Amino acid sequence: MAKPRVLTGITTTGTPHLGNYVGAIRPAIAESLSNDQDSFFFLADYHALIKCQDPAAVHQSAREIAATWLALGLDTDRCTFYRQSDVPEITELTWVLNCICAKGLMNRSHAYKAAVQDNEEKSEDADFGVTMGLFSYPVLMAADILMFNAQRVPVGRDQIQHIEMARDMAQRFNHIYGDTFSLPEAVVDENIALLNGLDGRKMSKSYGNTIPLFLGEKQLKKHINKIKTNLLEPGEPKDPDTSTVFQIWTAFATPEQTADMRSQFEQGIAWGEAKKALFELINSEVAEARTRYNEILEDGAYLDAELKKGAEKARAHAAPMLAKVRSAVGLAKFG
Amino acid sequence: MAKPRVLTGITTTGTPHLGNYVGAIRPAIAESLSNDQDSFFFLADYHALIKCQDPAAVHQSAREIAATWLALGLDTDRCTFYRQSDVPEITELTWVLNCICAKGLMNRSHAYKAAVQDNEEKSEDADFGVTMGLFSYPVLMAADILMFNAQRVPVGRDQIQHIEMARDMAQRFNHIYGDTFSLPEAVVDENIALLNGLDGRKMSKSYGNTIPLFLGEKQLKKHINKIKTNLLEPGEPKDPDTSTVFQIWTAFATPEQTADMRSQFEQGIAWGEAKKALFELINSEVAEARTRYNEILEDGAYLDAELKKGAEKARAHAAPMLAKVRSAVGLAKFG
Repeated sequence: MAKPRVLTGITTTGTPHLGNYVGAIRPAIAESLSNDQDSFFFLADYHALIKCQDPAAVHQSAREIAATWLALGLDTDRCTFYRQSDVPEITELTWVLNCICAKGLMNRSHAYKAAVQDNEEKSEDADFGVTMGLFSYPVLMAADILMFNAQRVPVGRDQIQHIEMARDMAQRFNHIYGDTFSLPEAVVDENIALLNGLDGRKMSKSYGNTIPLFLGEKQLKKHINKIKTNLLEPGEPKDPDTSTVFQIWTAFATPEQTADMRSQFEQGIAWGEAKKALFELINSEVAEARTRYNEILEDGAYLDAELKKGAEKARAHAAPMLAKVRSAVGLAKFG
Repeated sequence: MAKPRVLTGITTTGTPHLGNYVGAIRPAIAESLSNDQDSFFFLADYHALIKCQDPAAVHQSAREIAATWLALGLDTDRCTFYRQSDVPEITELTWVLNCICAKGLMNRSHAYKAAVQDNEEKSEDADFGVTMGLFSYPVLMAADILMFNAQRVPVGRDQIQHIEMARDMAQRFNHIYGDTFSLPEAVVDENIALLNGLDGRKMSKSYGNTIPLFLGEKQLKKHINKIKTNLLEPGEPKDPDTSTVFQIWTAFATPEQTADMRSQFEQGIAWGEAKKALFELINSEVAEARTRYNEILEDGAYLDAELKKGAEKARAHAAPMLAKVRSAVGLAKFG
């Protein structure tokens, strides 16, 4: 039996933090190294243009995120790792899908509706600040997925609707033009490891409470020291289950290390000591990748070569698929 | 001084009729043969998908229309003649433009508003039957134009709005990302030769009153015989200025021939004779092209070769332009 094809889009805005690492990057790389699936990972840089009109930021962020995944051990011989914008077939398919996608479907997209609601609350025109990119990006996303006949698409809850829209477009296309696309399914991992941030809330760029993944050692130590704790003195027993230090610890520790830290909390470990131990633990997991990350960032040619390899692998799938689509809709050659 | 670049999109639905020939094709080809401009002509087959979901019809119509222009003497060494869907850079640019194009702009598009009005009159949902292709095609059209830095775009009155939208997108892009696109201008020919159809109304596919351009001789004769006339007998003077036969005559005749026919009308030429003369006149203008047209349609390989040549010429402009755009928005290579 063929391995299921799993496609993961990687947002290329911002700088990856420990929460992204624990919740998304680490498990995705681990899965890609298993032999059970045919993994596609892509840098969603065409999507980035919707949110960011600063070219230097778009470029630098995609660069950092590509370097992050490579530094963390993504094996580009065992998976297909490419930049969305290196596969022009995707925008061609986007146009074809536009022609069978009901506008009403886009009207119902959560992201668009949220923007409209926001505008209405501010008594603005409903579409104020809404670009065609924001309005129509579920079509681009459908093309991302259908281009490669991906069967499984790991997403967060907020993205399930978009996978359903991609299914809808696939079904509609198949109905009009004959069987062409596989129907993708959203895969929502209910057990995603969520990491708390410096202030104890979920670690998130929008809360400004993140610990960037590849900080230098001194900076990493400084950030960890900033994690909010209570005022209990050394020697006073501490509750691990309400402590962010402990919560982050569990995301990096073996079960044995976790049991040990739990008992140290009960025995009244000083916050300073616990944070020092946490720093050592995280640093031991990321230090090697960080060195590699910095080397990769130095070497644009290496990044380009990796992405060129990925684009070639991706286009080896995309080109025949697009040829099939073109032929189905009536755009074949004349000869 | 560089010649102005003039870009003309050719709709690839339906079969060309004498009205298309006189009003659009003949003058466009004549202009392209002049040395005053750098002409681009493209078969708008991606646009055709919006209106037609019958792949055989999409394919056959594009084939016939390509053959028509070539048969009528379009000199593909002096202009750039290509199929839109052979230039994938266009859909890539479309996506980039989506990200700077306000949705509000598309809300105001005449074609979309007409569809909404039609739905409202039928008490349907406003967006009933509206695809994202219909809604967003002014963005594709802007990409068609801006891709080649076209300065002049000959259009009918109903299309002026779309050229203004393309200007708007070009200005917005230039404002955000720096000077990249020329601002196109609509060129509306106020003196377009309009041809009447069999029933005396404007010749138009939607009235079902057309005379197809490349009918065989017998069929052409039959169609011309069906042109509506009044009941005046041979010998009775006839009014040339209210006669469709005369109106079509003027579109094909020299001024001398027109003066001569006017005097024959006044002298009471029989309708049958006038139609016979009209048939001879039209046939003498189109017969050679018709033969060539049929030869070209036989030979798909010739069509493909012509369009391949055109695609190469078009992409020689499109590829560096897209590279400039990619770099401007932050999608350049990493090295």
